[in-house]
Amino acid sequence: MHVSRHKFAFVEALRQIVARDCLLLEPEQLLPYECDALAVHAGMPSAVVLPENCEQVVSIVKLCGAWGVPFVPRGAGTGLSGGALPADGAVILECSRMNRILDVNVEDRYAVIEPGVINADLSKAVASHGLFFAPDPSSQLACSIGGNIAENSGGPHTFKYGATTEHVLALEVVLPDGTLRRFGSPSGFASGFDLAGLLTGSEGTLGVITQAVVRFTERPEQVETLLVVFEELVTACDAVTRILRSGIVPSALEIMDQRTICAIEASVYSGGLPTDAGAVLLVELDGPAPSLARHVQRIQVLMQASGARNVSVARDAQERLGFWRARKSAFGAMGRIAPDVYVHDAVVPRTKLPEVLKKVCEIGDRYRLTLSNVFHAGDGNLHPNISFDRRNADELQRVLAAGEEILRYCVAVGGSISGEHGIGHEKREFLRLLFSDRDLATMEAVRAVFDPAKLCNPSKVLPSTRSCVESNPHLR
Amino acid sequence: MHVSRHKFAFVEALRQIVARDCLLLEPEQLLPYECDALAVHAGMPSAVVLPENCEQVVSIVKLCGAWGVPFVPRGAGTGLSGGALPADGAVILECSRMNRILDVNVEDRYAVIEPGVINADLSKAVASHGLFFAPDPSSQLACSIGGNIAENSGGPHTFKYGATTEHVLALEVVLPDGTLRRFGSPSGFASGFDLAGLLTGSEGTLGVITQAVVRFTERPEQVETLLVVFEELVTACDAVTRILRSGIVPSALEIMDQRTICAIEASVYSGGLPTDAGAVLLVELDGPAPSLARHVQRIQVLMQASGARNVSVARDAQERLGFWRARKSAFGAMGRIAPDVYVHDAVVPRTKLPEVLKKVCEIGDRYRLTLSNVFHAGDGNLHPNISFDRRNADELQRVLAAGEEILRYCVAVGGSISGEHGIGHEKREFLRLLFSDRDLATMEAVRAVFDPAKLCNPSKVLPSTRSCVESNPHLR
Repeated sequence: MHVSRHKFAFVEALRQIVARDCLLLEPEQLLPYECDALAVHAGMPSAVVLPENCEQVVSIVKLCGAWGVPFVPRGAGTGLSGGALPADGAVILECSRMNRILDVNVEDRYAVIEPGVINADLSKAVASHGLFFAPDPSSQLACSIGGNIAENSGGPHTFKYGATTEHVLALEVVLPDGTLRRFGSPSGFASGFDLAGLLTGSEGTLGVITQAVVRFTERPEQVETLLVVFEELVTACDAVTRILRSGIVPSALEIMDQRTICAIEASVYSGGLPTDAGAVLLVELDGPAPSLARHVQRIQVLMQASGARNVSVARDAQERLGFWRARKSAFGAMGRIAPDVYVHDAVVPRTKLPEVLKKVCEIGDRYRLTLSNVFHAGDGNLHPNISFDRRNADELQRVLAAGEEILRYCVAVGGSISGEHGIGHEKREFLRLLFSDRDLATMEAVRAVFDPAKLCNPSKVLPSTRSCVESNPHLR
Repeated sequence: MHVSRHKFAFVEALRQIVARDCLLLEPEQLLPYECDALAVHAGMPSAVVLPENCEQVVSIVKLCGAWGVPFVPRGAGTGLSGGALPADGAVILECSRMNRILDVNVEDRYAVIEPGVINADLSKAVASHGLFFAPDPSSQLACSIGGNIAENSGGPHTFKYGATTEHVLALEVVLPDGTLRRFGSPSGFASGFDLAGLLTGSEGTLGVITQAVVRFTERPEQVETLLVVFEELVTACDAVTRILRSGIVPSALEIMDQRTICAIEASVYSGGLPTDAGAVLLVELDGPAPSLARHVQRIQVLMQASGARNVSVARDAQERLGFWRARKSAFGAMGRIAPDVYVHDAVVPRTKLPEVLKKVCEIGDRYRLTLSNVFHAGDGNLHPNISFDRRNADELQRVLAAGEEILRYCVAVGGSISGEHGIGHEKREFLRLLFSDRDLATMEAVRAVFDPAKLCNPSKVLPSTRSCVESNPHLR
C-alpha cells in the first residue's frame, strides 16, 4: 500500500502519538534521512518520527502495522551498510530522543539505558568508577548504543574485548506486532532460547529496541600505545603475526597504508605520520603496570626483528590520543582524495592478510581505482576504501564491480563478507556467497516469526528473491 | 505413534544405518541411558544409536522423521537438568563416537572438531602451543564439547573467560528435517542472523551438532591460587566484593560452605580443608608474572581486612591442583552425606549473595533438609545442593518443594533460574517465572522453524501447555 494515497489520515494518526517537533514531514526535513553513512544509496522516507518513550514506539509500530506501512529503526545514522536506508517510502523511527541512562549499577557492572545513548557518553558516565563500555567503533562520539546492538558493532578494541554481543545482557524490544518484550537477563545468564542474542546483530529487522541492559568492563590499570613504521604493508602484517605468536595479547592492532597516511596528513589534522612509509601499525597494550613495561620492550624487539623503520612509544596520554586521532580520522580524511569513498568491510583469516591485501591492491589497479587500506589487523577485518566521484557513472560501476570481486575473494580464502558494518542493504545479495538457499530460507522463517508482515526494516540483510546481484534502483 | 507397534521395521531400518555395535536395544544396554546426571528423573529409550559420522546422523534423523519417532541428542550424559532424558520412548542419538579433532589451526586459534571430543582432551591437544579451550565445567574430564555447546556450559573460569557461546565460531548441524547446515563463520564474524548463537544453548532441541569450529584462548603466563578460610559464609561473600571493588579481575572465585568442606574431607580425597571453618574461598589469578605477585599481595591484605582466618597461596602447581581437586570433588563428595543429591543451579546479582544464601539456608531448615552450598561467587551462580534419599517419598517431595521456593526467591531478587546447567526437563515449567506466555510463544514459534514436527528432544526447555508446576510422571 502506498502511503501517499492515505497519507493524510496516516499522518494525522502519527500526530496523535508524538509531539509536534517529533514528526518530520517536509521534504527539507526528510532529506538528511535519505541515507545513512553509506551515501551511495538513497531513498526518501515518507515521514520521520522521533519517539520520546517506549509507549510511543509501541503506538507507532502498531499504527504502521495497521496501515501496512514499513518502518525503519534508526539510531544516529552512522551505519555503513545502508541499514537505515528508507526503502519504499518507509517511516523512519529514530530513537535519538530516547537517550537516558536509566540506571547504573557499579557493583554489578551494568547499566540500563535507552537506545539513543551515545556510545562514548556511556563510557564517560562511568569513567570515575574505573569502568567503561568496551565496544568502541570509530564513530563512537556519534553512534548510538541501540545502533551498536542492532549491528553488533565492533571497533579497534574488539580484538581483546569482543564485539557488542558480548556486552549485552538483556533487551526490551517492541516487536513488529506492537507488543513489548523482554529477552535475556540482567544477570548475564540467558535461559531458554537466546533471543537477546538473536536480536543483537539483527540489524533492526526483528523489532525496535527500546531499552537495553549492557555490561561494563573494568578499565585497565595502564595503557601503552606504540606506533610502528614499516617500508611495506606486507611487513606490517607479518609483524602482527610475530606479536601474536609471542603470546602477548594486545588490546588493539591497527594498520594504515601509505595512501591513508597521506590523506590523514593532508587533512585538517596533521599527526606527524611519515608519508613515505609503506604502512604504520598501531599497537595498544593494556593491563597491570609492571607487566606492560616488559611487553613494550618485547614488542620493540620484535618490531626491530620484523624490519620496522621506527618504533615510537606514546610518552603520555596526550601523545596516545594523538596516535588514535590519526587513526580515527582515516575515513574522514578520504575526502582529501575524492568526493566519495566506499568503505568496504570484509574479514579474512589473519594469516591470509598479506595475500589478500596483495589481491585487493591488484583489483584496485585493474579497475583503475584509488584504493587505500585501513584495518583491524588482529582479527583480519579489512577496510579497503575506494575513493571515487559518484557523479562519474562509469567510475561508480567500477567501484561496485571491484567491491564484489573483493568480497568474493575474501570468502574464497575462508573469510566473510562483513566484520562489523553489517549486511544492511548493501550486501544483502552477497549473503548468497555464504549461505545456501536452504539456510537463507531458515533465516527467513526465523524472521517471519517476528515480522510476518515484512514491515520492520524490510529489504535488508536477507537477499531478495532474485538470485543474482543486480544494480540497485536506489543508486544515484 | 508408539515405536513398539512398528518397532521391528523401524529397528531394521536403523540396523541398515549403523554398525552392529552402534545400536543398543536390549534392556540391560538401555538402562544406563535412562537418565543423565539428574538422576531423579528417568525414562526408557526405545533404542540408543551411536553414529560414527555425520552421514549416519542425517540418515537417523531422516528415519525418525519419516516414522514420527522423537530423538534425543546426547553427549556424555553428564548434564544436570535432564536434557538427555529419553521421554516418550525416544531414540537416544549419542555422539560419543564422533570424537575426532579434525583440524587445529594454531595461528588463527581455532579447531574443527566432532561433537564427541571430551572438553579436557581438547585443551590437552593444544597445551604445547600455549593454548587452551576456556570453558571448564567441573565435569570436563568426561563431558563432550557437543554437550557444552548445547548447554552453553560454564565453569569456574567463566567469570573471566566467558561461557561456551563466546568460544563457538561455527556449527555444522543436522536439522530435524534431516538437512545438513552450516551456521556462523570460522572467522568469528557471523553475518545475517546469528543462528550459530541461537543453536548454542538450545539444549539439543533445534538439531544435532555434527561439527563445530571452536576458538582457543592463550594460556596465561602465570597462575596464582589462594585458599582463604573464613569463620562465616557471609564474610566470604563480602570478601569477594572487596576483591572486585579493588579492580583486580580474578579468573575464578569459588566458595564452599562448611557442610561441603566436611563432605570433601570425609571422602576418599582429603584436601586438608578446615572442617571447622564457615567457608573457604578459592581465588585464582592469571596473567603476566610481574603483576601477579603484586595482586597476590593485595588480595592477602584485603582478605586480612575482611576478617579471614587464614590465607594460603599455592606454592606450586601440585598444591594448586590440590586446591582444585578439592573443589571439583564437591559434588561427588555429597555421596558421603546421603545417597542422592539434588544440585540446584540459580543465579542472583552478586551483591545479593549474602541475603540469598541466608534465605537458602532458611528454606533448607524449614523443609528439614540437609543443604550445602558451592558456588561461583564472582558471577552469583549458586549451587545449593540438597542431600536426600529418594527412596523416602516424603523427603523427595520436600526436596522439590524447597527447590522451587529457592528458584522463585532468586528470580524475585533479580536473578535467573539457570546459570550453566540449562533448563532441560527439570526447569521447563519454571521458565514461566522469567517469561510471559507471549514470550514463550515466540520461543515456540522459533523452535517450530527448526522442528515443526516436535521430534527433536521434545518436552525440554519450553514449558508444557499446562501452566502450573505438576509432579512429573517420570519421577521415580
